[in-house]
Amino acid sequence: MAKVLTPRSESYSQWYNDLVLKADLAENSAVRGCMVIKPYGYAIWEKMQSILDRMFKDTGHENAYFPIFIPKSFFSKEADHVEGFAKECAVVTHYRLMNDPDGNGVVVDPEAKLEEELIVRPTSETIIWNTYKNWIQSYRDLPIKCNQWANVVRWEMRTRLFLRTAEFLWQEGHTAHSTKEEALEETETMINVYADFAEKYMGVPVLKGFKSANERFAGALETLCIEALMQDGKALQAGTSHFLGQNFAKAFDVKFANKEGKEDFVWATSWGVSTRLMGALIMAHSDDNGLVLPPKLAPIQVVIVPIFRKPEELAKIKEAASGLIAKLRDKGIDVKFDDNDNKKPGWKFAEYELKGVPVRLAMGPRDLENGTVEVARRDTLSKEVVALEGVDEHIVKLLDEIQTNIYQKALDFRAESTVSVDTYEEFKTQLDKGGFIMAHWDGTPETEQKIKDETKATIRCIPMDQPDEDGVCIYSGQPSKKRVVFARAY
Amino acid sequence: MAKVLTPRSESYSQWYNDLVLKADLAENSAVRGCMVIKPYGYAIWEKMQSILDRMFKDTGHENAYFPIFIPKSFFSKEADHVEGFAKECAVVTHYRLMNDPDGNGVVVDPEAKLEEELIVRPTSETIIWNTYKNWIQSYRDLPIKCNQWANVVRWEMRTRLFLRTAEFLWQEGHTAHSTKEEALEETETMINVYADFAEKYMGVPVLKGFKSANERFAGALETLCIEALMQDGKALQAGTSHFLGQNFAKAFDVKFANKEGKEDFVWATSWGVSTRLMGALIMAHSDDNGLVLPPKLAPIQVVIVPIFRKPEELAKIKEAASGLIAKLRDKGIDVKFDDNDNKKPGWKFAEYELKGVPVRLAMGPRDLENGTVEVARRDTLSKEVVALEGVDEHIVKLLDEIQTNIYQKALDFRAESTVSVDTYEEFKTQLDKGGFIMAHWDGTPETEQKIKDETKATIRCIPMDQPDEDGVCIYSGQPSKKRVVFARAY
Repeated sequence: MAKVLTPRSESYSQWYNDLVLKADLAENSAVRGCMVIKPYGYAIWEKMQSILDRMFKDTGHENAYFPIFIPKSFFSKEADHVEGFAKECAVVTHYRLMNDPDGNGVVVDPEAKLEEELIVRPTSETIIWNTYKNWIQSYRDLPIKCNQWANVVRWEMRTRLFLRTAEFLWQEGHTAHSTKEEALEETETMINVYADFAEKYMGVPVLKGFKSANERFAGALETLCIEALMQDGKALQAGTSHFLGQNFAKAFDVKFANKEGKEDFVWATSWGVSTRLMGALIMAHSDDNGLVLPPKLAPIQVVIVPIFRKPEELAKIKEAASGLIAKLRDKGIDVKFDDNDNKKPGWKFAEYELKGVPVRLAMGPRDLENGTVEVARRDTLSKEVVALEGVDEHIVKLLDEIQTNIYQKALDFRAESTVSVDTYEEFKTQLDKGGFIMAHWDGTPETEQKIKDETKATIRCIPMDQPDEDGVCIYSGQPSKKRVVFARAY
Repeated sequence: MAKVLTPRSESYSQWYNDLVLKADLAENSAVRGCMVIKPYGYAIWEKMQSILDRMFKDTGHENAYFPIFIPKSFFSKEADHVEGFAKECAVVTHYRLMNDPDGNGVVVDPEAKLEEELIVRPTSETIIWNTYKNWIQSYRDLPIKCNQWANVVRWEMRTRLFLRTAEFLWQEGHTAHSTKEEALEETETMINVYADFAEKYMGVPVLKGFKSANERFAGALETLCIEALMQDGKALQAGTSHFLGQNFAKAFDVKFANKEGKEDFVWATSWGVSTRLMGALIMAHSDDNGLVLPPKLAPIQVVIVPIFRKPEELAKIKEAASGLIAKLRDKGIDVKFDDNDNKKPGWKFAEYELKGVPVRLAMGPRDLENGTVEVARRDTLSKEVVALEGVDEHIVKLLDEIQTNIYQKALDFRAESTVSVDTYEEFKTQLDKGGFIMAHWDGTPETEQKIKDETKATIRCIPMDQPDEDGVCIYSGQPSKKRVVFARAY
């Protein structure tokens, strides 16, 4: 079979687009910038959702749902939010269509103009804090720890499937606390949840750190983030957790009476990950043959392809496989037996490679005779013939091994791709090779901006676990206490 | 404690509103007609979603996601759809805000006007069939059986929490088939799934039937529905499944090559249930003390309230309860141990009654001495003292019993409230008492419309399992072959 994907070496960006389309993950829709998430792509997102949802609940959060529309005036209430937040939003101005008097379908009814325009939520801090106002009177009402799974819209001009789309799916957590310390702790708890999820489930190692002031969320006092490295050496912000201080409480007048009966404004956090994670997952592991999925997020973890010419052969293979399938399903493994007789085994092998199924079994008449089965790994593309007896245990271990291997490979790649530089010349040379660059920075937004303007590199984060170290800023020569992480980014 | 709810006898409608608010299910938001679904309400919806999702997957459906926006022109493509569908929609006309030059917050940027307006989806047939066009070439690509969990917007003028809101959450299934028979079968399969869900999980008996032409979905050749009866004698449509024929395939030019290589238009169905089910659930079972939830949908199935004065007492009760809690959780039962010491037991009892928790246990020092526990049922409000030893088995049975009892009670109520009438006078008298009225109808839209105009009663459905019976229309005296179900409805 001819390669269906543009090789990464030829065009990483075209490879990504090819892969998203050919592996049936998503496609562009008739609406500019809005994607259709196809069943196979959505099945991966559902696994992500279900694991994250469990992690949120285990850390004491509840789900709720807030309106998709936000009155325009709400955006003006928190000064930094309105200043900093992109103003590319979908604006609803009318609430009725009517038949075109000239008979050309439907037109907007000019009589049905809204008094105040509604914005399709780009994020929900404002409407949620306007709601929390009614939920909070005293410290006994706190903390409130809500999450919502929702769609949001940001009218991006240049879109790419999963990575940057006008509409995307996400979760947004919004918590309310009686003390600054508790809110700070929550901010940190959630970035740790995201990091755990990225590493243990997605198999993607991430750096945890603080955003510089320039890169902070509009309205946040502190933004924590996780940053992943893609195979082309570009960084991808995979999740953020914001300490919002009392900014939104002040904007929406949300006060509480503390234990001493004294009134104070409520402390806030917000945190989110989105379908962008799908982009990170795809780009972190996949190869020129297609997707490589970590077993913990693969919709199909094991596929069994029978090799047969005659229906009798298929029947025998089916029988031999049925015990194995039952055992695997008992262990909670998602198995597919593909007996479609319209497609040849070779076609199926390529197809499941393209779709990133971690383990592929092939069983033919000779295997039946020998009591064996062929086991192929997607991550290493290696094959082995093993005894059918006990293969279920083997597969359980193999899935774990693949999960670990995928992560280790990404971790090694990141280690190779992370360098420390001490001069601006080195910095620029290194940038063109890609990867994370650890460099000293003088801490000023001006220097950060100049470096960005000159090189397109941004400070991805000020890492949480980076030791203090005296040095001088690569750009200004001013003193610096700590290296920060630069990269070009998605 | 004073009753927090308006009694049903005083005002059923006020009772409903009180209950939705006081039980923390939902509330109105700052955006007209859009609700906030609060954590407790959302937890019930999540249980509904998770069960329905499993049922959809077990019947061969996959989830996907389609854009929230639909180009305005799409609505004109299917003639009946545009004619019949309410035109009250949220219309997006602009894509950018800007700072008000006069310094008053933000205004809509007049430069950022969309060439074609976008409609926030009221339902997704059009955008989905426009997408399916690219997915379907031959019969091998069929069937396609997608479902999506999504928010939709219909600009309703008179809204009520859960029952009729501008934005609501729902699922919409959209399937594509190569034959009419297969599409008809799918339409029926899904109404059966809905009926099973309503009866087995919600404990709400439903009538299955066909909608009359007047009440059909815009663009459907046949609409199947399930109709439930609320305690005030009004009907509530709880779910619909539409046979769309080839209408949308023709509108969006979706053809396939059949096995013989001949081209034909694809056959379609669509089906959905929404957060309206929450309204049905609340109104079908609850009483003047609050919610009554069927155990299978209760976020908290069992609550344990310790009765204590001193911390030592609480510690002992906690210890005694811990084994029971572990056993119940092992059986998959959601248990809450409420040791909040800010609230008295009496307050807690009322609170969990209000919230419909099916089983409440109370444990005090005397129970510890006697090895007993007090078990209270929400559905009957009865209490008994039972041995702590083995109470877990007792509770499992009790939860089943409550589930059955709730359903049976609703079924008995419906039986009492269903009458056959043979004259229009009887019909009108009966209507004021509420309930389902089985009556002969001549089958014409004109008669149906006149009855509706004169009495506000609509044909809820032409029941699937109603035997044929010769009679004459209560209104026109024309011959009729079958009784249909009339009622006033939500």
